[in-house]
Amino acid sequence: MNGARVLIVGGGGMLGRKLARRLLAQGRIGKRPLGSVHLVDLKAPEIADLGTAASAEAVDIVAGDLDGLLARRAPDYIFHLAAIVSGEAEQNFPLGYAVNVEGTRRLLEAARLAANRPRFVFSSSLAVFGGRLPDIVPDSQRTTPQSSYGAQKAIGELLVADYARKAYVDGVALRLPTIVVRPGAPNKAASSFLSSILREPLAGKDAVLPVADDVAAWIASPGIAIRSLIHAAEIDMATLGADHALTGRGITVTAGEMLDALSRVAGAKAVARVRRSPDDTIARIVGSWPRAFACDAATRFGFPVDESIDAIIRAYIDEELSGIVVA
Amino acid sequence: MNGARVLIVGGGGMLGRKLARRLLAQGRIGKRPLGSVHLVDLKAPEIADLGTAASAEAVDIVAGDLDGLLARRAPDYIFHLAAIVSGEAEQNFPLGYAVNVEGTRRLLEAARLAANRPRFVFSSSLAVFGGRLPDIVPDSQRTTPQSSYGAQKAIGELLVADYARKAYVDGVALRLPTIVVRPGAPNKAASSFLSSILREPLAGKDAVLPVADDVAAWIASPGIAIRSLIHAAEIDMATLGADHALTGRGITVTAGEMLDALSRVAGAKAVARVRRSPDDTIARIVGSWPRAFACDAATRFGFPVDESIDAIIRAYIDEELSGIVVA
Repeated sequence: MNGARVLIVGGGGMLGRKLARRLLAQGRIGKRPLGSVHLVDLKAPEIADLGTAASAEAVDIVAGDLDGLLARRAPDYIFHLAAIVSGEAEQNFPLGYAVNVEGTRRLLEAARLAANRPRFVFSSSLAVFGGRLPDIVPDSQRTTPQSSYGAQKAIGELLVADYARKAYVDGVALRLPTIVVRPGAPNKAASSFLSSILREPLAGKDAVLPVADDVAAWIASPGIAIRSLIHAAEIDMATLGADHALTGRGITVTAGEMLDALSRVAGAKAVARVRRSPDDTIARIVGSWPRAFACDAATRFGFPVDESIDAIIRAYIDEELSGIVVA
Repeated sequence: MNGARVLIVGGGGMLGRKLARRLLAQGRIGKRPLGSVHLVDLKAPEIADLGTAASAEAVDIVAGDLDGLLARRAPDYIFHLAAIVSGEAEQNFPLGYAVNVEGTRRLLEAARLAANRPRFVFSSSLAVFGGRLPDIVPDSQRTTPQSSYGAQKAIGELLVADYARKAYVDGVALRLPTIVVRPGAPNKAASSFLSSILREPLAGKDAVLPVADDVAAWIASPGIAIRSLIHAAEIDMATLGADHALTGRGITVTAGEMLDALSRVAGAKAVARVRRSPDDTIARIVGSWPRAFACDAATRFGFPVDESIDAIIRAYIDEELSGIVVA
């Protein structure tokens, strides 16, 4: 059996690199051995970031030249994780549409023209929902995004579903919960603080909480997000039916509950690093996202889920800090 | 008060011409006198088609050159009715996206760059719904289109809503019911037969019914559709809230009920003109459209609705046939 060719668009980002690491470590995808992993991004990752299983033969890292890559060889699996994040898409309206809509369309068109019907996993977002919503959002809920990022992700979902319906791709759009604890530096996403109020104190640094303590988010750890993306690449398309967009499984946690968990896991000194400084723009964007989902489809399809916010923090300390808390 | 400048994109189509006629006849839109009506289409209508109120001063008809028109002067009202219809969008995948998605985006971009915040009325479609649906589809229903046309209209709705949220346009997307009785010739829309099984027999011609008698549609007359589009241009944006896409009010009628009404209004001889000849493609497309809607928002905002299928047929005979049935 030929090894599967995997393309990760947005491969330089946190999820892209972790996804590549995991695929390389397990050496297979679906029922096939892994052939190669191609990572494409504006800023390409270093091969050293991809774990001990990465080799120059198995990994192809390309900065920028997506068209060339797609023309050269059609991937069997495409993970489309690239996006202009929510805060930036709100500030730079044309850029958000160029990358989040046109970029997605270009990838799907390349797959259509290659005519090999690849699996296409699109990372969507809970930001497709907004406005007045039920307390627990069902899978049947209408998408009424209240941010350009959300609108662009909702459009991406429709594109993936239509290309899948036409059998140009085997498409699955997965609305990932907000990733907590996201390693690395703060970014321009409105949700960035949800990680930094945990990550920064654990590294002995100060952090800012820009919303009220009772603001809640639907979150998943990086590990669960990666396992979910791979699961989306492996589920049976026949069982998926007509709805190609799935709300990913998460847990509902308030900012206050995060700080309580931080205190339990790392002590009161860590929590004291967090300063409250309200930011209306961030509060408006994050407040428009819903806090709980039914996720019937993702549960039925066996997607994984985190156990608790305490477990998420402990996993972050183990995996990213080698078990050492500076605070 | 300056006269309002109205642009009708897709002005050469049946709805575009009827909309222009009605606006010219009433001489105002909203609280403003009508300044000018611009009709743009691939194939422009004749000024003689626009009624006795049409004059060369008030009407500007342009075939094709949309960019030039938009650059020349920013309209106060944009009615975007242009589309590749469902059957053709299914056959010609790239063309459907080029016109129904990119065309809509171009219009919205022109409005954004003109920075005069026009009212933007987008004619959407019930084809945004599909797959497993409740018997009566609520306004909160998720859009899961099962045709490229439906996907493209759902994307258009998201674009209109996002441009409206950013205050680039005062945007309203109206999902028009299927128009029955549509005058003129059959077209490539999968729904074309819903009109032709009434229109052709009333003109003494044969027609084909390609679906089962119990296949139902959510329909509105051309007159109600035009009044609804104008209503969408006049409703208070503040009352609209975050959801800029409205399901238009219609009535649910089966193909069999249409033929019964045809019999009541025009006699059994007219009905005998209709031959049953199943077409799986049409049956699949039309069968994926839902047959009844709650329409709470459109009802609350005072949109008009037809009285009965009999009244729709009688209005068609009066308006389009000068009261004369050939059958």
